[in-house]
Order: sequence, then structure tokens, then C-alpha cells
Amino acid sequence: MPYVNIRITNEGVTPEKKEQLIKGATQLLVDVLGKNPNTTFVVIDEVDTDNWGIAGETITARRKKGQ
Amino acid sequence: MPYVNIRITNEGVTPEKKEQLIKGATQLLVDVLGKNPNTTFVVIDEVDTDNWGIAGETITARRKKGQ
Amino acid sequence: MPYVNIRITNEGVTPEKKEQLIKGATQLLVDVLGKNPNTTFVVIDEVDTDNWGIAGETITARRKKGQ
Amino acid sequence: MPYVNIRITNEGVTPEKKEQLIKGATQLLVDVLGKNPNTTFVVIDEVDTDNWGIAGETITARRKKGQ
Amino acid sequence: MPYVNIRITNEGVTPEKKEQLIKGATQLLVDVLGKNPNTTFVVIDEVDTDNWGIAGETITARRKKGQ
Amino acid sequence: MPYVNIRITNEGVTPEKKEQLIKGATQLLVDVLGKNPNTTFVVIDEVDTDNWGIAGETITARRKKGQ
Repeated sequence: MPYVNIRITNEGVTPEKKEQLIKGATQLLVDVLGKNPNTTFVVIDEVDTDNWGIAGETITARRKKGQ
Repeated sequence: MPYVNIRITNEGVTPEKKEQLIKGATQLLVDVLGKNPNTTFVVIDEVDTDNWGIAGETITARRKKGQ
Repeated sequence: MPYVNIRITNEGVTPEKKEQLIKGATQLLVDVLGKNPNTTFVVIDEVDTDNWGIAGETITARRKKGQ
Repeated sequence: MPYVNIRITNEGVTPEKKEQLIKGATQLLVDVLGKNPNTTFVVIDEVDTDNWGIAGETITARRKKGQ
Repeated sequence: MPYVNIRITNEGVTPEKKEQLIKGATQLLVDVLGKNPNTTFVVIDEVDTDNWGIAGETITARRKKGQ
Repeated sequence: MPYVNIRITNEGVTPEKKEQLIKGATQLLVDVLGKNPNTTFVVIDEVDTDNWGIAGETITARRKKGQ
């Protein structure tokens, strides 16, 4: 019954990439802890770059500086 | 002061249904634990079906298969 | 596939009360949205009263004042 | 390595206000706990007023009553 | 800057297993989205089996029935 | 009605430091967004250093290397 929440910035992640994240995270729980995939949830949250900060500044500001 | 977070897929939940979830979850905390409703928060997150996985595949893929 | 997270203060909630919260929250999702209980998760987090604040003060401080 | 998640209602918060929240929350962790800002994340979630409940009713309903 | 939160039941997960989860989840974000591992956080929450419910009953109850 | 969740490592944070975090985060929401402190929650989660990873390794491992 694991629950995995992946939070990333909203920068054009395709449905195929999301499928890979979901498949990979589920497999990780199966491989490492022997969890049942049928009761393993993976939820991806895409967060606007204005809403994510690191080192006291937004990702929007960091992207403008090429970071 | 409970905080309840309900995460569901984004599949056309009406404002009326949301009101019922909020009312019901608040009442549950009042009934079971005697909490004060005035300081009980309920937050509903609606998640795109591409972003929610179970058993290693997205809800989008499962819906296509009739699950 | 709903995921419900109930966060409350850690003040002696019994296993029986937790069962009631889990049963009640699951039933709420079944009743309001027709969700499948077999893929409905409810996770209860018990938070120390020193670690929960409201109105800028801890629950520990509020309990001492009879709130 | 702190992670701060600020959840507020989605009511027209400007990018400038978000920058202030991110800067302020990061500085708080630096000032109080001596954390390294370079590994301090702040994530702001804006929640629709239909999806946030307090006292068993939505913020939408409360706003209509002038609360 | 991804943030990954893995929630599992508290059933004797060793530090070595936790290292594998952290390494694997970080690598997944690097491989699929090209994220920088230096700003990728993975946080594991271990939840008491009394506090995790599925299908309306606790994991404690399910374990007793051999599930 | 903001909800602020501060997640830090469990490394001997005193009750006084927690009070400062709660007071400071609440004041930030009042100052920047004009929120009502009476309905502002701050919840601090202390996470074991074995359970927090950055750059693919645990904080426990990083602390041993003096980071």
C-alpha cells in the first residue's frame, strides 16, 4: 500500500514521461520492499515555476538566469 | 484543529459533491474525536488522470480499458 | 483511487477511534463519489502538540490556557 | 534541507507576493535553525475556493457571506 | 528541484533499504526528466499499521487476516 | 485559512525553536497576504535523518562526511 508523491515543476512533462515516472516508482517499491503494485499509488504534482522556490528565489527567476 | 486532505482524480466533480465531501469529513472528525469544526480544514486536490498511477499505469490508461 | 490524509494532534487517539476514522472516510468517498473502497487509502498522521500551531502559538500552549 | 509547503486559496496572489512568501519562509529557516538556503525548498499550492472547507463549508460559501 | 515523498507502513524497513529507495527515486528523476540530483529530495514517511487504512480497515487488521 | 507544513530533519529542535517557526510562519502570511492568524495552521514534521535523502544519499550519510 505505498503512496508516492512526486512533485516537480510544470515545464512541459509529456504523458509518456509521466508514465515512465509512474512505472519506475512502482517498480522501485516492488524491487526494494516487495510491495504489491496493485496497491501502490503514484501521484505527480506539477507546480508552476512561480510557486516553487529554492535559495529564497523562484524557479522562474532562476530559469531567467540560466539556472 | 484537524487538517484533512482528500486527493481524487479530476473527473468532473461538481461543487455540490465537494460541499458534501467537506461537510462529511468535518462531521466525521466531530463525531469520532469531538473536534471543533471551526478549526477543522478540509482541502480537496483534483489530480489529472495522467498524473495518477496505480499498479504502474496511469488512470488514463486504466479508464481506456474500462477499469 | 482516492487518498485521504487526516492530520490530527497526538493526544491519545485509540486504535478503535482510528478504525472509525478510516471506515468513515472510506464510506464518505463511496457515498459521495461512488469510489471503489478497495483502492481507497486513508492515512492518519498524529502530530505532537509542540509541532502544531494555530494563531501563531503551539497547541501545547493553547492547552495550558484551557483552549 | 527543509521543505516548506504553503497552501493558500487561489485568490489572485501576484508573482511579487509569491516571491515574498518564498523569501520570507526561507529566511525564517535560516534565522531560527541555521539552515542552508541553497537546500531549502518552498512550494506554494493555490487551492480553488470550492475545494477548501472550514467549519464544514467551502471558502466560496463563506466569501459570499462576507467572511 | 524535485521533491519525492514515499509513504509506507512502519514494518521494519532497514537503513539499507531506505538508502536503496532514496538512490532509486533520485535516479528515476535523473533518468526520466534529466533533473539535477543535488537538488532532488526524497523523504520517506513510515506510518504505523494502525494509522493506514485500505478498503475501510486498518493494515493491522489486514495483517491479522494474512493480507 | 492558510496551512503551512514545515518539514525538517529530526536533529534536536527545541520547543522554543518550534514556537519561533510557528510564530514566524504565521506572521509571514499575515504580513504578505493579510491572512487571519486565527485560521492559519503551521505543522512541523521532524523526519529521521535516515529517511531524508538529497543527491541520492541519506542525511545520515552526509552528516558523517561533515556536510
